[in-house]
Amino acid sequence: MSILVFGHKNPDTDSICSAIAMAELQTKLGKDIKAVRLGNLNKETEYILNYFNIELPELIEKVKDEQEVILVDHNEKGQSVDNRDNSKILLIVDHHKIDLSTADPINLRFETVGCTSTIIAKLFKENNLVPSKEIAGLMLSAIISDTLLFKSPTCTDEDIKQAKYLAEIAEIDYEKYGMDMLIAGTSVDDKTAEEIYNMDMKPFSFGDQTATVAQVNTVNINDILKRKNELIKVMQEKIKNDKLSFALLMITDIVNKGTELLVVGDKTLANKTFGLDMSKDTVYLEGVVSRKKQIVPPLTNAAN
Amino acid sequence: MSILVFGHKNPDTDSICSAIAMAELQTKLGKDIKAVRLGNLNKETEYILNYFNIELPELIEKVKDEQEVILVDHNEKGQSVDNRDNSKILLIVDHHKIDLSTADPINLRFETVGCTSTIIAKLFKENNLVPSKEIAGLMLSAIISDTLLFKSPTCTDEDIKQAKYLAEIAEIDYEKYGMDMLIAGTSVDDKTAEEIYNMDMKPFSFGDQTATVAQVNTVNINDILKRKNELIKVMQEKIKNDKLSFALLMITDIVNKGTELLVVGDKTLANKTFGLDMSKDTVYLEGVVSRKKQIVPPLTNAAN
Ligand SMILES: [Mn+2]
Ligand SMILES: [Mn+2]
Repeated sequence: MSILVFGHKNPDTDSICSAIAMAELQTKLGKDIKAVRLGNLNKETEYILNYFNIELPELIEKVKDEQEVILVDHNEKGQSVDNRDNSKILLIVDHHKIDLSTADPINLRFETVGCTSTIIAKLFKENNLVPSKEIAGLMLSAIISDTLLFKSPTCTDEDIKQAKYLAEIAEIDYEKYGMDMLIAGTSVDDKTAEEIYNMDMKPFSFGDQTATVAQVNTVNINDILKRKNELIKVMQEKIKNDKLSFALLMITDIVNKGTELLVVGDKTLANKTFGLDMSKDTVYLEGVVSRKKQIVPPLTNAAN
Repeated sequence: MSILVFGHKNPDTDSICSAIAMAELQTKLGKDIKAVRLGNLNKETEYILNYFNIELPELIEKVKDEQEVILVDHNEKGQSVDNRDNSKILLIVDHHKIDLSTADPINLRFETVGCTSTIIAKLFKENNLVPSKEIAGLMLSAIISDTLLFKSPTCTDEDIKQAKYLAEIAEIDYEKYGMDMLIAGTSVDDKTAEEIYNMDMKPFSFGDQTATVAQVNTVNINDILKRKNELIKVMQEKIKNDKLSFALLMITDIVNKGTELLVVGDKTLANKTFGLDMSKDTVYLEGVVSRKKQIVPPLTNAAN
């Protein structure tokens, strides 16, 4: 039985590309491994796999007991494959906060960099291996996606260094390719409000409140805001079905660097954390582009 | 304020030597850092620091708010410094099971090898650095200690590879030095029963039961067993004071590779896990030398 490698549910570009890159790395190391995914691709990732002519990884929902797995770009149980508790985790490579408890020793490689693919690029080097041209292109794409072309505050010198190294292998002008790729990811005209909300949505716990935080990138915030009423309805449904305290949507302008934060449900924590006017649905957060660094930690701190 | 680096409470050789080695690594990387310890040295570690003429790290009990720390050889809160929740963890290097939850992304390097110093030796190489002769000797000592001179089932090819590399730098005959060092660590004639129990003792949770598991290495199990009644009294006190379900002492013969397991308190789980005769205090476990690999996981599994 092959080892399976996958990123989080509701996969973003990093989760898909890092899984495929990890599969190439482990294959070069002599392992029998297959990259899979836990959800549908977003437009950006579709553009990337198409650009590099890479086959779509198989969709899975759960794993068999004792299945050997490698996790990339996530570690929390709620974001992972069903039945993970009965699988055998060989390795986790991630760049998020951790919430993990195991019965046995485990291999972990967590770095506070902007993208999981940055760490995987380092793993290739540490093993004296070089990724293929296409896989280098995928890892470069993941770094561009997670760091918004190096403009996110999560971006580190290490991300830029590895991205430039990967761009050389892939023979790509990363500035031009990166902007094309990001813009390809922002088109939502053919999407329902529900699809927009679920595109890049993650569940979190803040103190004793549970919530979802979704993010949609755009080059024009009003393109999304004009569908506010539809979106609020979807988020209210989500709160009801999943028994959440509240639901957030980050509408992030990737050119001007800022986020219109849409808050549905109990607004108390968003008020305390971001100064949301309680009579309104949204608050504009200048310079905020990162869920992981600028939205989740302040909410966690305010809740404790 | 210097970064502080330390191993677990009740430090064993790996916790002391890995902290000192990590301090040298980070110093070479330009960081202001100091190795400290969370408890008294055991005889083996005393022998080692004396052999390599290395200064005793300062003893600390808690850290100030916002103190930057690096943890080696442990990750669980109960085994770490007081006030850790208010410190800033920069990095954890460990080879144990994990139980950790953070508010922010974190740097983690966990490998399923026999010793933390094995991982630190790899970190030196990855950064194109070579440890000094003395620090190589300390890391070699930690590997010998944690793997019982490569005889423990926790020992991996990677441990042996790094130990041989370190022995070359340290210019040491590791077979001879290793046996001298291990035997130096087994003398308990000048110790009270309480000191014996606390020398290498760690707290654990198994399902809803809490317990302590201590280990003492010896070249003659009867040397320790002749003090059974004293030891039982100490363990009963421990159970009462810390409200434990039970307390274990592994009396491990490092030459013949086996453990006499002394069980005090509620014997149900030890009976279920190791076939302890309920009318007796001890059971001999042939081939068992590792708490981490051969005692804790079976107890965890039996409890769930
Ligand atoms: Mn990522
Ligand atoms: Mn250790």
